[in-house]
Order: sequence, then C-alpha cells, then structure tokens
Amino acid sequence: MEDIITLDYGSGGKKTSQLIENLLLPRLLNEELEKLSDGAILDGSDKLVFSTDSFVVKPYFFPGGDIGKLAVCGTVNDICMCGGVPKYLSLGLIIEEGLPLKHLEKIISSISEAAKECSVTVSTGDTKVVERGFGDGIYVNTSGIGFLKYPWLSNKNIRDGDAVIVTGNIGEHGTAVMLARDGLLSSDSIVSDCAPLIDLAAKICEYGHSVRVMRDPTRGGIATTLNEFVNGSPFSIEINEDAVPISPSVKSACDILGIDPLYCANEGRILFIAAENEAQSLIDALRKHKDGRDCAMIGHVTSRFPGKVTVKTPFGGTRIVQKLSGAQLPRIC
Amino acid sequence: MEDIITLDYGSGGKKTSQLIENLLLPRLLNEELEKLSDGAILDGSDKLVFSTDSFVVKPYFFPGGDIGKLAVCGTVNDICMCGGVPKYLSLGLIIEEGLPLKHLEKIISSISEAAKECSVTVSTGDTKVVERGFGDGIYVNTSGIGFLKYPWLSNKNIRDGDAVIVTGNIGEHGTAVMLARDGLLSSDSIVSDCAPLIDLAAKICEYGHSVRVMRDPTRGGIATTLNEFVNGSPFSIEINEDAVPISPSVKSACDILGIDPLYCANEGRILFIAAENEAQSLIDALRKHKDGRDCAMIGHVTSRFPGKVTVKTPFGGTRIVQKLSGAQLPRIC
Repeated sequence: MEDIITLDYGSGGKKTSQLIENLLLPRLLNEELEKLSDGAILDGSDKLVFSTDSFVVKPYFFPGGDIGKLAVCGTVNDICMCGGVPKYLSLGLIIEEGLPLKHLEKIISSISEAAKECSVTVSTGDTKVVERGFGDGIYVNTSGIGFLKYPWLSNKNIRDGDAVIVTGNIGEHGTAVMLARDGLLSSDSIVSDCAPLIDLAAKICEYGHSVRVMRDPTRGGIATTLNEFVNGSPFSIEINEDAVPISPSVKSACDILGIDPLYCANEGRILFIAAENEAQSLIDALRKHKDGRDCAMIGHVTSRFPGKVTVKTPFGGTRIVQKLSGAQLPRIC
Repeated sequence: MEDIITLDYGSGGKKTSQLIENLLLPRLLNEELEKLSDGAILDGSDKLVFSTDSFVVKPYFFPGGDIGKLAVCGTVNDICMCGGVPKYLSLGLIIEEGLPLKHLEKIISSISEAAKECSVTVSTGDTKVVERGFGDGIYVNTSGIGFLKYPWLSNKNIRDGDAVIVTGNIGEHGTAVMLARDGLLSSDSIVSDCAPLIDLAAKICEYGHSVRVMRDPTRGGIATTLNEFVNGSPFSIEINEDAVPISPSVKSACDILGIDPLYCANEGRILFIAAENEAQSLIDALRKHKDGRDCAMIGHVTSRFPGKVTVKTPFGGTRIVQKLSGAQLPRIC
C-alpha cells in the first residue's frame, strides 16, 4: 500500500477492495460487513435491508439526471439488489459555501421526484456547510432502509450452465458524465441510464429461486460486478462480447475517450444470473418494460476457469477480464 | 434569502432552520421530517429510530477525540435522544486524495472502538475518493438504526414549572475544536466532551413520564436547543446563568475567543426537561455517573414569555436568548 490515499482507492475496483479488505474490515469486523454486499440484512421482527452511499458526481448536473436523482436511485437500487423493498431514506448534505441556491433547489426537487417515483420517504436529514475550496458544490449521502422480500439471492446459488443477463445497454451513465465533465463532445445523444430498479427487480424476482443473484453494475462496470459474482467460487463466467448490448454512440464515445465500456458505470441496469431454462422467458418479460427493452443474455456460468471472468471476442479469441484496476473514471457517482 | 449558500446556513442556528423550513421541507414534505427531530420514528413490526449525520469537523483530530469517534457518538446520541436504543450504523467516507493512510487507520480504529463501546455494529459502508482540493482530508457520514424504547419523549410533554437540567459542563467540544484549529492557545486543559450518551439516557428514562424531552445540544449549543424546546409553544424557559455548569478554562477560552458558551457545541451532554418533583433525585443519580458528575438544574419552564428563552444574569437582569444566528463556529462537528 502507498502511504497516502490516491484516486485509485475510490475507483470501485481493485484498490477499493484492497482498502476495504486490508484497512476497514479488520477493524470493523462483523458478519454483515464481510459479505461485501451492496447492503446489510439486519435482524429484528422484520428482516431489514440497510444500505448507504455517498455521491460526489462531477458535474452535479448531467444529461439524464443530477446528483439528487442519483442519490435516491443509487441507494434504492442497492436495497433492491439485496432483495429488499426500499421504504425510508436519510439525506445528508455536505454543501460548499457559494453553491447557488437555485442549484440546491433543483437538486432537492430531483430528490423529491425520485423519492415519489420510488415510493420511499426521506425521513431524516442533516445539512453541513464547508468553506469555499473544501468541497465541490455539493456531496450527498443517502442511507436507506427496506424490508427484505427476496431473501434467497446470493452468489452462493450460482450453478454451472446458468445464464448471465443484463437488463439494458451498458456504459451510458459513465460516458454521459464524462462527456458532460469535459465538454469535449456534444453529449446530447448520450444520456445517463440513472433510474430506479424497483420494478425490474420485482419482475426478475417473480422467477423465484431460478434467479440466483443480482447486482447493479455501477462503479467499475459490468466487468467488476461479474468478477464479484465468481470471486473465490468454483465457477467462472464466460461473456460473449458480441452479445453485450451497447448503443453505437456509447461505443464511439468509449473509443474516443479510451474507455473500455465493460468497466464503465451504469446506474439503471441489473446484471443477474438465472437458471438457463428460464432465461428466455425472463428476457421476454423484461423487454416489455421501458427500462428493459435492450435486455440480453451476455454469457454463461462455466467451471472452466474457477473464479475468473473471460470474454470471447468477435474474432474468436478469449481474454480474461479482471476487476477494474486504477481509477478509470473518478467522481462518476 | 441570499442567492448562494453561505457558512451561516451550516451553523445549526437560524439560517439552518430557514434553509430547512423554506427549501427542504416544502419539497420533501412528510410527517416525520416535519417534526425536525434528531431522528425519525419509523413504522414496522418494531418501531425503529432512524438518524443521519455528516461530520466535517476541522481539524479531524482534536483533544478528546477525532472525526471517527465523533461520527459514531453523534449518530448514536441522536438515536438515544429520540428514545431509541442504537443497534446498527452505516459508514460513508468521502476521502480527499492525499489523506495519509495512517490517519485513515487511526480514524477507522476510533470508529471501531466507539462502536464497541456503544454496542452498535457498522453494518454497511461506502468509500468515495475526491481529488485533492475538493475536500478536507476526510468527511464521514453515519446513519443509524435503533429500536424505540422510550416512546413518550416530546416537546409536547413540557409543563409549567418543569425543571431544566444539563448533565455536565457546557462548551467543551466547541472550544476544544476551536483551539485545536487555530493553534492559538495550548489547549491541553480543554478536552472535547465527545462521548456516547446511551447510559446517561437510560438512567434518565428510568424516571418515565417525569422526563418530558431530551436533546444533545450540539451545533448552536444549549441556547439553540432550549429555543427548540419551546419554539411555538405556550411556555418559556428561564435559565439562571449562575447555575449553568462551565469549567473555568472553557469560560476563559470563550472570553478570549469571543464566543458565548451558551452557543458553543457539546458532544457528550444531555439537556432535558423533567418534572420539578423528580429533579433532585435525577441529578443525584446522574452525578454518580462518570459523564454526569457536573449535572445541574439550570432553570425552569414558565409561561411568562411564550416561545422564548430568557437568562437571568448574575447582576439580576434578564435577557432573551435566541437561536444562534450567523456562523459562530463552522466545521465544529
């Protein structure tokens, strides 16, 4: 480890894992945290799902959303991915002195709209203001509580031959934010996929135990999430690159920006693993939903390279895809 | 309202209230948020208490604690003040590129120790890294879930003649942080009162409905919290300045810094209102606790100046004490 924190530590990839595994976990050791899931399942008369996320996206307004919408969807989606139905949110604002009130109003309005769409209540909040030069306009933390509805979801359910499915085109959030940040290209054609995943998750979970595990592939993209699915397991995942849904404009933008779309952040997609025999039925059902139109099966679980993710290229080759290393896209969420 | 956010908005006083009442509440309207309590009471098979706080204290190490200990105690205490027994915490880190890993290790160790002391589990977390120049070392958000144990606590229980009690010397956190920040004075004699309030709160609540309401007077100090107790109510609070416990060194430091200790932040004190006939017994019980040694009755509820807080000065005068206006002590928690 270096002796200071670098941007790589916030990438959501290898360095972030190292930080968590070497520094955080040994000190905060407990069963829930060790699962390294998007949220924790808590005991009580009701089984609760508890999740937190801080949002530092730059710029805080981007095509398809803003930090407010993102902060609601991000935490709501994490709860959904753990099998929960989100219900309550907390809202922590760290505002930099000088933020225009009009911007704050717009962000809070986005939070309000997104919360309504998700049927969650912002139940408690906190506002801090830091001096000019010690923030970046606004950082937002949301924590969320949901009630556990689909308790079986886990990496441990994955079986040889299972299908790997993604609910839509990849890389739209990451490229939309990058283009908005750099002002390099007119970005009107690329809009963040930022959206609540409550409905899609419920549709998927109707298939019961045929659905093994799901995640929303945010920081680090689908490559990182796929690795998390099989990390330390006896299975590998084989992706067919040709089958991965991606819009032509995102593909071009990634080429120009030098980004691999497999590592590019998504904020409105579910990546999940399901029994092969239900895969087509699932895809047909999801394609009827407005956020699932481009749903596709992108690969399979095998036992060929335990713990690894491989990609079959259009030219017939196979390459190993690792977790994101380094900070490809900092401040993306 | 000005058209940008100024530091005053983060003071915990009047401007913060304005921001919440004029900008946040109208957009996020719901019953729980409107109570403007330290946390929300949520429905479910168990009644839950949910609270959130972001910590931006500068410097992040100070005599008597650090941002890690503060982040655990702050949220734990908010849950206690709402009548809950804290159980689970989330941990959101926003780290500035360049933070020495040793500092992060120390902060996480403090979090771990404080969590153990409070019997709470850090169940879920998130880490973001922002570029150098867009943070201040580290900001920490904690959100907490507790189970409601003392459900009656509310401003609405306050009655004419009730006693106003504070569990210890005031102003120690605020002055300790200010002195550590400016390096003006040797601050060894002033140590933050930062501490979990679980035990003290439980002791107080043993007195049942004789205890009307309690709060930890953090940002804005006891003056602001006292105003929150009677704001919009038919009662007033009359404080006897001579009776307010304060150490000689904090008194001197406040004189030198030009701060009124009534507005100075505390992080390990409970300010509460109780039936007059139980006041002495409560004070005797609390003084036996290590964090309650300096517990004192500082005033009474009257109906003389509805909605106001007044202070009787040692010279026999009476002045009205308002909520903090302006940003006396930014970045104190």
